[in-house]
Amino acid sequence: MTDFRDFVNAHKVRMLSELQELLRIPSISTDPGHNADCRRAADWLGNHLKALGCRTVEYLASQTHPIVWGVGPEVPGKPIVLVYGHYDVQPPDPLNEWTSPPFEPTVRNGNLYARGATDDKGQVFAIVKAFEAVMGRNRPPVNIRFLLEGQEESGSKILFDLLAREPERVRADAVLVADTPYYLPGWPAVETGLRGLCYAEIKVRTARSDLHSGLYGGAAPNAHETLVRILAGLKTAEGRIKIPGLYDLVQRPSKQVRAAWKKLPFNERKFLKDEVGAKALTGLKAYTVFERLWALPTFEIHGIKGGFTGDGAKTVIPAEATAKVSLRLVPKQSEKKVQKLLTAAVKKLAPGYADVTVTFVHGADPVVVDVDSTPIAVLDRAFTEIEGRGVVPVRSGGSIPIVPELAKEGAPVVLSGIGLPDDRLHAPDEKINVEQIWKGVRVFGRFFELMAEREGVEGASSNGETASSR
Amino acid sequence: MTDFRDFVNAHKVRMLSELQELLRIPSISTDPGHNADCRRAADWLGNHLKALGCRTVEYLASQTHPIVWGVGPEVPGKPIVLVYGHYDVQPPDPLNEWTSPPFEPTVRNGNLYARGATDDKGQVFAIVKAFEAVMGRNRPPVNIRFLLEGQEESGSKILFDLLAREPERVRADAVLVADTPYYLPGWPAVETGLRGLCYAEIKVRTARSDLHSGLYGGAAPNAHETLVRILAGLKTAEGRIKIPGLYDLVQRPSKQVRAAWKKLPFNERKFLKDEVGAKALTGLKAYTVFERLWALPTFEIHGIKGGFTGDGAKTVIPAEATAKVSLRLVPKQSEKKVQKLLTAAVKKLAPGYADVTVTFVHGADPVVVDVDSTPIAVLDRAFTEIEGRGVVPVRSGGSIPIVPELAKEGAPVVLSGIGLPDDRLHAPDEKINVEQIWKGVRVFGRFFELMAEREGVEGASSNGETASSR
Repeated sequence: MTDFRDFVNAHKVRMLSELQELLRIPSISTDPGHNADCRRAADWLGNHLKALGCRTVEYLASQTHPIVWGVGPEVPGKPIVLVYGHYDVQPPDPLNEWTSPPFEPTVRNGNLYARGATDDKGQVFAIVKAFEAVMGRNRPPVNIRFLLEGQEESGSKILFDLLAREPERVRADAVLVADTPYYLPGWPAVETGLRGLCYAEIKVRTARSDLHSGLYGGAAPNAHETLVRILAGLKTAEGRIKIPGLYDLVQRPSKQVRAAWKKLPFNERKFLKDEVGAKALTGLKAYTVFERLWALPTFEIHGIKGGFTGDGAKTVIPAEATAKVSLRLVPKQSEKKVQKLLTAAVKKLAPGYADVTVTFVHGADPVVVDVDSTPIAVLDRAFTEIEGRGVVPVRSGGSIPIVPELAKEGAPVVLSGIGLPDDRLHAPDEKINVEQIWKGVRVFGRFFELMAEREGVEGASSNGETASSR
Repeated sequence: MTDFRDFVNAHKVRMLSELQELLRIPSISTDPGHNADCRRAADWLGNHLKALGCRTVEYLASQTHPIVWGVGPEVPGKPIVLVYGHYDVQPPDPLNEWTSPPFEPTVRNGNLYARGATDDKGQVFAIVKAFEAVMGRNRPPVNIRFLLEGQEESGSKILFDLLAREPERVRADAVLVADTPYYLPGWPAVETGLRGLCYAEIKVRTARSDLHSGLYGGAAPNAHETLVRILAGLKTAEGRIKIPGLYDLVQRPSKQVRAAWKKLPFNERKFLKDEVGAKALTGLKAYTVFERLWALPTFEIHGIKGGFTGDGAKTVIPAEATAKVSLRLVPKQSEKKVQKLLTAAVKKLAPGYADVTVTFVHGADPVVVDVDSTPIAVLDRAFTEIEGRGVVPVRSGGSIPIVPELAKEGAPVVLSGIGLPDDRLHAPDEKINVEQIWKGVRVFGRFFELMAEREGVEGASSNGETASSR
């Protein structure tokens, strides 16, 4: 058994400087101008894993955004823990809202500020350092594998393709994903579900070309007006989505789950003021805020294109209008199914004089995680030992498209993490609390040790062999 | 008497190339980036008028969009004809829908294609060339003055201000405004009414900043959704505008007027197919198309700004959304009154959780013209001589904000022109028919000559003196 507290105390100065090195690389995957930086971040992680004792390190499937595949020493008869994470980051805009530059990691008041600090480099780093800690005697307690991608913020296409070809990569006894925060400071959480996503463009065409509103207004159809009427027809002012069949697919969380959510400390006033920053919450009032955020589908309009939006006054009747919209999906609502329902609802609302099309640009199926899995019980114990409180089961309203794929070979997925709710991921002044990183090293280290007390999947070691000999 | 046919034949090659020169200047008044181009267009016209024999040419009231004030030779005892027109043009977007670039005037199939070809440079040019023709002997038949502005497409503020200070500028026996088309090829028209305009921006703010639709979707208000619901609430699918009080102000045209409109040749199928380019006409079905276009108010959405409209899929809940909208107004509906009605209607539809503001960016009162005026009778005769058909009385659904001001000193306003209904003003591939330009030179030349047979306003010449000596 490793003394993780001693390990952290002995190495934290070096470790902080290592993480700052990684955070300095602007590995923005949505911007092709940063392809070389993504490659640099992958190299940094690969070299690091190699130095820590991975017997295999490979860069898979892409030159620009390679998947880092690291395989720790073989531990026959012991479980396989697959660690998933990502080294790419969101764009840092708006730059002028950062207190210190996004790629010059800076410690202030016990927090490390940088783009990617919490999403996801800092969290991946905590697991890598836990691996370093358990590698102290060159024989880790379990079979540890790393699957670190560079496209999480831009669709994970490379990883989707890889897993379609080589699904056995994710054969494991546990998949550990540290890409989510604590529920509150001192309250570690495990995500028991993620909403899915169905992102679409609704395009309306009403005429050959834009028309003069003076000459034709009153008799000519207006694409924006038509689109607005369709969009208004898709949701009531009270927040009910009017897509026939959509709610038939909603499975309400069990009484036990809802009871557990009710026990979570939650201050609606503070949530409204500090997080949402609005005058009032909206949505279906018959449901709690947690149900609205975690267990009910949403329909959002993201933007409307077409016509005239410049300065001044152009009196044009737009011939074409396009709305970007999306639905968040909850368990049982597959992306494919919801695509069909949305298309049908839009077509029904479309008037005969307009050409209306719906195209789909992005999406993800929802995820439910079995909260009774062994790895979650193990993580709960690790957190209890170190934090003095086990994990509370929560869900996330967001989507991590690759998660359903990680579960496809049957391994229980653990969605947890050491971020805090105010880490401002995707926003200026993203940060991670430094003490949370050290807590993470200790918790994930104990997680590896405690997993070793469980029985591994049959043929774990030979699977490891297969994977590493590719 | 000038032989205008000979004049046109002798000079048309040169004249076409002159007009192309003027059309090459991208004098877009709504875009401050084109201020210098507006100035260039004003200079071009001013220099031209000077070269043709105007005794005074002044650039009034603004450095960026000066009003070109040109005063022809004094002809004592003869009427004053004031020519109003504008040298500014609409923005050319969308550029990719132009067959040839908007500021590279190109002749195809007898038409000259360019932004501003018909609205209004081509029409102003026809009158300027009529002035050139009657100046053949350096003594025109009447006192001709030009008032050419550079802000018609962006509110005419400079001209409004000028006429508030110097109303005597528009003291005349006739104000000739050539900014409207024929009713049909071969059917010259005179506009007996113009709709007014009330152009507004409706802005909705629902939160401090944009939010992540995964984390907050379901409980946070969406600015676009709120705006869409307000806009949908302002008009029914059947075309009835739901602004309380708006229709109370509508004065239906008299039976005689409606009977005259019924006699106009009109093929709804052809109008739909060739002009509107849509699958069906919309609007209030209980009224004829002419009534919908000329005698009823409209409500149009021009564009919606805010949120995310770029490529790809950004899952943002927009905190702010702005719609550009406008109403066309009919006699008795003043802009001011309708501003109040719109604001009240929007405020009533606005939900408590949103900050909703309505600001007004542009507008015009509606106009009715006395069809029995002397100048209209004169123009009717000129058209009859040259086109073989006099003017038919129509209205226009469009607005020329300055027209009510032009009439304030009592001069009868003549709204006519030589465009054709398919000139696509404000749209890609705007054009003017080249033969129509030459017809215009002849008609407007004859109009000047025939006006000379009428008696001028008392003290016409001294008024001219006053004006020119400013």
